[in-house]
Amino acid sequence: MAAMSEDVYVGIDVGGTKVLAGVVDNRGRILRTAQSATPGRRVDVSLVEDALTEALHEVVGDSVVRGVGLVAAGFVDATGERVMFAPHLPWVDAPVRLRLEDRWRVPVTLENDATAAAHAEATYGAASGVEDAVVVTMGTGIGGGLIFGRQVRRGTNGMAGEFGHMQVVPGGVPCECGGHGCWEQYSSGNALVRFAREQLGTRPSILEELCDGNPAALTGPMVTRAAEEGDLLAHEAFGLIGDWLGIGLANLVAAFDPGILVVGGGVSAAGDRLLEPARTALLSSLVGAGHRRVPPLVAARFGPRAGLVGAADLARQRVARLAI
Amino acid sequence: MAAMSEDVYVGIDVGGTKVLAGVVDNRGRILRTAQSATPGRRVDVSLVEDALTEALHEVVGDSVVRGVGLVAAGFVDATGERVMFAPHLPWVDAPVRLRLEDRWRVPVTLENDATAAAHAEATYGAASGVEDAVVVTMGTGIGGGLIFGRQVRRGTNGMAGEFGHMQVVPGGVPCECGGHGCWEQYSSGNALVRFAREQLGTRPSILEELCDGNPAALTGPMVTRAAEEGDLLAHEAFGLIGDWLGIGLANLVAAFDPGILVVGGGVSAAGDRLLEPARTALLSSLVGAGHRRVPPLVAARFGPRAGLVGAADLARQRVARLAI
Repeated sequence: MAAMSEDVYVGIDVGGTKVLAGVVDNRGRILRTAQSATPGRRVDVSLVEDALTEALHEVVGDSVVRGVGLVAAGFVDATGERVMFAPHLPWVDAPVRLRLEDRWRVPVTLENDATAAAHAEATYGAASGVEDAVVVTMGTGIGGGLIFGRQVRRGTNGMAGEFGHMQVVPGGVPCECGGHGCWEQYSSGNALVRFAREQLGTRPSILEELCDGNPAALTGPMVTRAAEEGDLLAHEAFGLIGDWLGIGLANLVAAFDPGILVVGGGVSAAGDRLLEPARTALLSSLVGAGHRRVPPLVAARFGPRAGLVGAADLARQRVARLAI
Repeated sequence: MAAMSEDVYVGIDVGGTKVLAGVVDNRGRILRTAQSATPGRRVDVSLVEDALTEALHEVVGDSVVRGVGLVAAGFVDATGERVMFAPHLPWVDAPVRLRLEDRWRVPVTLENDATAAAHAEATYGAASGVEDAVVVTMGTGIGGGLIFGRQVRRGTNGMAGEFGHMQVVPGGVPCECGGHGCWEQYSSGNALVRFAREQLGTRPSILEELCDGNPAALTGPMVTRAAEEGDLLAHEAFGLIGDWLGIGLANLVAAFDPGILVVGGGVSAAGDRLLEPARTALLSSLVGAGHRRVPPLVAARFGPRAGLVGAADLARQRVARLAI
């Protein structure tokens, strides 16, 4: 007897190097995933859309797709129809949602990856049950999402949560955005590597060995590995991005007064090595710390797959609304 | 024949030097006001509450009070019951709302002044009809309010909108809050005077005369007057706080993506002398300015009376809720 086909919702996270698709159930659990390679930025958009389609078909198999949520690192317009600009993808002011809906013949939802990740944490993760929350996603840069009244707020242009480009140092380190002294230049995977590189040679460190004496070859995973092995220089580099994490979070708390602070993204895998110095800096930087309940600072539940989980859930919500 | 007594809602704004009470109609119009002097910080709280009562009785006259909204510069707790701390008033963790309700025998609402001002601008003022807005109140410092979904958001501790204590310069000018480099140290009435004072003597300026050659005697109104008379040094001081206003607003736009930016408070009376440099700095500092609709930066409608108008309206809303 053949098994009955199941109805599924799929989240797809299209990053700079890979496309990750996953079937996600209605409790935020990832049932299975499939991957394909991202063709790159300087290619025809149809190649990227082929890669998405490939990952989608693979993950779906014999199931019936009820909805697909697609997320990418980039600017999605306020209506959730277009990708305005994505640093690692060829879409520019492209009506991605409708084009994929036409191609796949299922309801498609489009969202910024960090916003979707915040939605996942608010719905099933570390911020669930909390009225107002800030979710910060720390990878090579900093993205995030704002939760007010248990809902992720997209803002007027769909661009709320670009925390990484808040200026924390006037005339500071140049940023790819064109600005100077953006928060993500001091607290991110890139900042971790830069801080470690700057200190290289000032004292003994196994990082010298790991990068073969070539500071330019230093990577984030090397700093992480060195810190895990007790290397002091690597540990201090985490301390620096942790300090800056706390300072930037203190600014967000002064502005929003959230009930919880959630930190996700690749760098957050470092756990308390990152979060402990951040908690100390938050307490010492926050206005009125003696007159308020300082929000707990916790690691995200979903880690690097939060975007995918949020994407699938947003698709599920959209289909539920369409059905009314 | 005696006139029929009217039912009124009263807003009371208790500042560091004066208590301002006003009867406000249901379109945000102030019908009449009354004042009394604030007794100061180092007095018994009963003296402050006497001063409030005096202003209330005077403004009410023969009318029937339906509700009173009280606002103060300070921290009001999340439930709107207590003043936790107010820099210019003797209340410390005091159950102000209930005490005044018992004394006056009318429904009383308690709120932070900048939050109430933001409510007034969202309901009747420059931000009315806009879904998401940021209202910045610039006086001796910077306060403000966040509007999401046309509602002022109070945050978890009732402390959202403390924009002035977001750090913009690491290790910068010391702030009364205990921090360093807070935004309000670079963009406020106090900052205006400091910038002018620092430049005094570097070139000819009528400010020398206005302060009798004594930089310590310089005041905000003197700088305003000098700027109005075309004084270059005073004009540049406004340019500096305007630049910093734009930089700080760019940070708030990166985080919230609001549809409008409203600037109120005493310093905003300078109008475009403040707002023009701020618009320029906002545009050059804002991430993704080419990919978004940059929010208009406008002056508040209610100026220094926004807190009073918001207070009365919050009282009106509370009574309407109690009546359901």
